[in-house]
Amino acid sequence: MFISKSFIPILKNNPSEAKIKSHQLMLRVGMIKQSSAGIYSWLPLGFKVMKKIEKIVREEQNKIGAQEILMPTIQSSEIWKESGRYEDYGEEMLRIKDRQDREMLYGPTNEELVTDIFRSSVKSYKSLPQLLYHIQWKFRDEIRPRFGIMRGREFYMKDAYSFDINDEEALFSYNKFYLSYLKTFKRLDLIAIPMAADTGPIGGNLSHEFIILAETGESKIYTDKRIFDLNSEGTKLEKKSLKELREKYEQFYSVTDEKFDKKEFEKKISEPNRLITKGIEVGHIFYFGDKYSKAMGASVDLPESKKDFVKMGSYGIGVSRLVGAIIEAKYDEKNEVMKWPISVAPYDVSIIPMINKNDISALEKANKINFEFAKNNIEAIIDDTDENFSSKIKKMNLIGAPYQVIIGKQKDGDLLEFKEIGKEAKRINLVEIIKIIKEQKAGN
Amino acid sequence: MFISKSFIPILKNNPSEAKIKSHQLMLRVGMIKQSSAGIYSWLPLGFKVMKKIEKIVREEQNKIGAQEILMPTIQSSEIWKESGRYEDYGEEMLRIKDRQDREMLYGPTNEELVTDIFRSSVKSYKSLPQLLYHIQWKFRDEIRPRFGIMRGREFYMKDAYSFDINDEEALFSYNKFYLSYLKTFKRLDLIAIPMAADTGPIGGNLSHEFIILAETGESKIYTDKRIFDLNSEGTKLEKKSLKELREKYEQFYSVTDEKFDKKEFEKKISEPNRLITKGIEVGHIFYFGDKYSKAMGASVDLPESKKDFVKMGSYGIGVSRLVGAIIEAKYDEKNEVMKWPISVAPYDVSIIPMINKNDISALEKANKINFEFAKNNIEAIIDDTDENFSSKIKKMNLIGAPYQVIIGKQKDGDLLEFKEIGKEAKRINLVEIIKIIKEQKAGN
Repeated sequence: MFISKSFIPILKNNPSEAKIKSHQLMLRVGMIKQSSAGIYSWLPLGFKVMKKIEKIVREEQNKIGAQEILMPTIQSSEIWKESGRYEDYGEEMLRIKDRQDREMLYGPTNEELVTDIFRSSVKSYKSLPQLLYHIQWKFRDEIRPRFGIMRGREFYMKDAYSFDINDEEALFSYNKFYLSYLKTFKRLDLIAIPMAADTGPIGGNLSHEFIILAETGESKIYTDKRIFDLNSEGTKLEKKSLKELREKYEQFYSVTDEKFDKKEFEKKISEPNRLITKGIEVGHIFYFGDKYSKAMGASVDLPESKKDFVKMGSYGIGVSRLVGAIIEAKYDEKNEVMKWPISVAPYDVSIIPMINKNDISALEKANKINFEFAKNNIEAIIDDTDENFSSKIKKMNLIGAPYQVIIGKQKDGDLLEFKEIGKEAKRINLVEIIKIIKEQKAGN
Repeated sequence: MFISKSFIPILKNNPSEAKIKSHQLMLRVGMIKQSSAGIYSWLPLGFKVMKKIEKIVREEQNKIGAQEILMPTIQSSEIWKESGRYEDYGEEMLRIKDRQDREMLYGPTNEELVTDIFRSSVKSYKSLPQLLYHIQWKFRDEIRPRFGIMRGREFYMKDAYSFDINDEEALFSYNKFYLSYLKTFKRLDLIAIPMAADTGPIGGNLSHEFIILAETGESKIYTDKRIFDLNSEGTKLEKKSLKELREKYEQFYSVTDEKFDKKEFEKKISEPNRLITKGIEVGHIFYFGDKYSKAMGASVDLPESKKDFVKMGSYGIGVSRLVGAIIEAKYDEKNEVMKWPISVAPYDVSIIPMINKNDISALEKANKINFEFAKNNIEAIIDDTDENFSSKIKKMNLIGAPYQVIIGKQKDGDLLEFKEIGKEAKRINLVEIIKIIKEQKAGN
């Protein structure tokens, strides 16, 4: 993609209305544009990143056997009255009347709707477990939308729902998502820690928030530092292995604000390992048994002519929010340098030729390099404008493709100036450059 | 995918509420589930087809240089007041008040919002042309939603917008979409004919509907039969070649209801070539010049300190509607046999083993075949239930994977019973089967 043809409206300076760095960068580099309070359009650069995150989220859902569906954004109030949440949910629910004066709403979450789908489709325990998910726009009418897409009103979310025959199987499903979340965030190059959390309006008594550390986060967390050294490697999609994974994490005290107990915190963690800090919630999983299935009559036939309500859990990942969360984790705002993880970078590499009106040889070289990149499925963005060199570099540092090929005046045979953001530039040939980038891409 | 693990709730009989065959099949085979009037959830089978259609639509947009963005579903009324359409649009627009009592709406189309994005981002003619598109849910509050997803209220649509410096360039953009639409529908194995059409609430004076023939269609069309023999082969993405393509189609009289002129029809078409029939609109393109750019002040700087309003067009494809349109075109409702085009089929092939309680050798064979398919990127659905053989065949005929491998009692060495839906079964080996399916997939 040539900068001159792209729709990447870059601002010269940081927008004054943005208070946190993800909001600043996203407006600055034209990833989003606000259309009204807490509601944004995604421009090509932001859209590309969000789609790559969505793809990773989807792949990890599919790996644990979840099936993708798509529920509508607009729901009838009827099912919310069945569950008893219609009145409870409060003003954050966007309530709508259609032209026939029917009470509708823009879904803030989908426990009711998916339970309705399940109860009309599945009749026998033999069809269990069922793991269903969708990735859809949701709306919560925040009283004070802020921080750009981090706390917007219309947001893009993956939510999954599990249906099981009893508590033991339901816990197995819960743990599958627990693993899949650890894997998902790892592929996004984020360290997200599962923390015991409150269940809030979803209900139930078992819940974890997945939180990444960030000073700008809205979640206060109390944790044992050693939990950051853990990972999910070697865990199998089996009951025992998943249980061990949970136990491995849960040996370290780690909770959000609502679950915090000072005494326990101090008893369970020795002083040097205590960490009280802030974080961003990027995922949240719940187990709530038969809360919805009982209220809405979602039961299955068991052997011996028995019947029972299915046991359910729900599992959310904020897909649009993750775009901001990754920026919060990776953007060096002092030096104005962003480096996207290669797995979600809008472009793999930027090509920055020095172009004068009288000398376009560097641009021609850039085109040739781009041609080779394309053959190797490496996506490049080329600054083909005649702006001065340093403002080109500055721009590409904001766009944040993790690699840069800089074509200046210096001639050096086949060697090119190649730089991984945050590291020293080196002079190597194109074949080596392609090899490095391909290896990085393959790792994800 | 094993039927026993899948979420494909199949009905024994045709649902009585469905009046047209696409609605019947989609409910029957569990592709969708209605959640309220004109609003549907997409279950895995329907979702897979819709996603494949979306992918083809996206690829063909990208090929003409359009860039993907994503605008929100909820819009502010302000921009609609600027364009003058807020009052005009009538009751089909779903109007919403948020908790702050601000007037919002669920976007039925996006001319205003994209013009707002453009005017704040692009300042110079040097950045033109710009072709922007998005694929997003829209809402039109139909008074009488009917025919399932063919005329629902919440629907999934690709809409694109072009921005050009003058009429000539704008027409070039218009013709790019004209070509891209012909190519898109061809990949969906549909014969869609561009017909001169009315512009309605979008405005402008140049417009084409792309229509496929179907008795259940809501559009009445008047056309010259010979237009069905045309195609876009050999057309290049250049002004002259695109103009010739338009001329090739426009030599044959072909209009929708609102544009119909009996005298012209009879004068321009000799009697044996006249065709008066019904069709389904699957795409609609418009050129409306500066209608929105003028009202909303979207201008660019020209050379010599001049300024002018950009010339715009808009281009829609009904992505969710296409799922139904393809069924209308391909489903043999008498024999209850569906054959999806391989490009959008939910599965490439179904494997139907005859399973008895005492003999699961056919299932084991099915698993082995599936393993080979998977290695070759061929997606199969396997009926691993112990239902009787004929009801298995019936089910797979409804699901509509275009190929079937039937594993019955007959042992015949390496030979398998292989059937392309609508053709004679033959006995060939697995290597040949894989070759046939791969060739078909590669052609799309």
